[in-house]
Amino acid sequence: MAQANLLNELIAGLRCLPGVGQKTAQRMAYYLLERDREGGRQLAHLLDASMEKIGHCQQCRTLTEAELCNICANGSRDASLLCIVETPAEVAILEQSIDYSGRYFVLGGRLSPLDGIGPKEIGLDQLDKRLAEGEVKEIILATNPTVEGEVTAQYIGEMAKGYSIRATRIAHGVPLGGELEYVDGGTLLHAFAGRAEFMQER
Amino acid sequence: MAQANLLNELIAGLRCLPGVGQKTAQRMAYYLLERDREGGRQLAHLLDASMEKIGHCQQCRTLTEAELCNICANGSRDASLLCIVETPAEVAILEQSIDYSGRYFVLGGRLSPLDGIGPKEIGLDQLDKRLAEGEVKEIILATNPTVEGEVTAQYIGEMAKGYSIRATRIAHGVPLGGELEYVDGGTLLHAFAGRAEFMQER
Repeated sequence: MAQANLLNELIAGLRCLPGVGQKTAQRMAYYLLERDREGGRQLAHLLDASMEKIGHCQQCRTLTEAELCNICANGSRDASLLCIVETPAEVAILEQSIDYSGRYFVLGGRLSPLDGIGPKEIGLDQLDKRLAEGEVKEIILATNPTVEGEVTAQYIGEMAKGYSIRATRIAHGVPLGGELEYVDGGTLLHAFAGRAEFMQER
Repeated sequence: MAQANLLNELIAGLRCLPGVGQKTAQRMAYYLLERDREGGRQLAHLLDASMEKIGHCQQCRTLTEAELCNICANGSRDASLLCIVETPAEVAILEQSIDYSGRYFVLGGRLSPLDGIGPKEIGLDQLDKRLAEGEVKEIILATNPTVEGEVTAQYIGEMAKGYSIRATRIAHGVPLGGELEYVDGGTLLHAFAGRAEFMQER
């Protein structure tokens, strides 16, 4: 069945969504056409508007349709605390999970010179200006624990040192609910190297 | 994070797709915005066009943007063989799987008087006209093996009898690659009741 018709084009179009293969795309297309045309129309409108209007926050580089994202525009958030993440999705997941009152800076990637991604491509010139302003007292490095993520964290750590700003790195170790037996060697190495005093008195 | 912004609206909009929950919708939205805006725009256009233009084939009731679907418009398909299915998706799956040269009729549901779905709602008046034309020599009942699907098959079987048209039902039994141990009782009952001669001589 290689018909070049609208239905098949729609199915092919749905496959641009991550994790959606031929079968899922078919199911989605038939579902929308048979049961939820209004939802389909609404989604078409939202997709179109989003692709056109959503850009990056001028201050933290996360995704937003305004000049400043809701977090940067919120005056009650602590401007002395800056959490550095790789992607806008990570901002969302942190906001949903932890009670963090500081601000964010979104790199939109990680240093990878071989792929032509240098400091400028991940906005480190902009971050440098922000650190130079003197408002930030601590940066929390939350880049991913990959080789590039570590290199990126170290690079930014050095930048912070230049301004005598405290730089911390989120902890990497055995996840809660994880069992030692099923945790990979790299994580265990991290967990041991990063061990802390237990039941310490203050 | 209960921001009423375009990004959150897009995430909510994506949840109208079957099998897409909050996390998947987030992943899709971020993916499109960060990596495939062109794909997102294209999908918006296809969704919009599909919801507006795709209707039902006037002859077989499957989904198509033309007056007749590709199968009904194809003169080389055998008009004496008519396969009756419940949904357009089933036409697609049959076309992809088996080498069937006949035509289809899509009910778009099954008889369910309690839900107000009678013969007219599933196009049986249209099917009746088609059978009366005399071109159809055999109908293959491929409604699903549920109570309503069986009732629907029986109802249509009676209609065919009225025109002395042969009515057959697709076989229900143990699926290929299935093991008896894991097959449900109803299927086993069907498989035993529908047993056929083995290695029969012709």
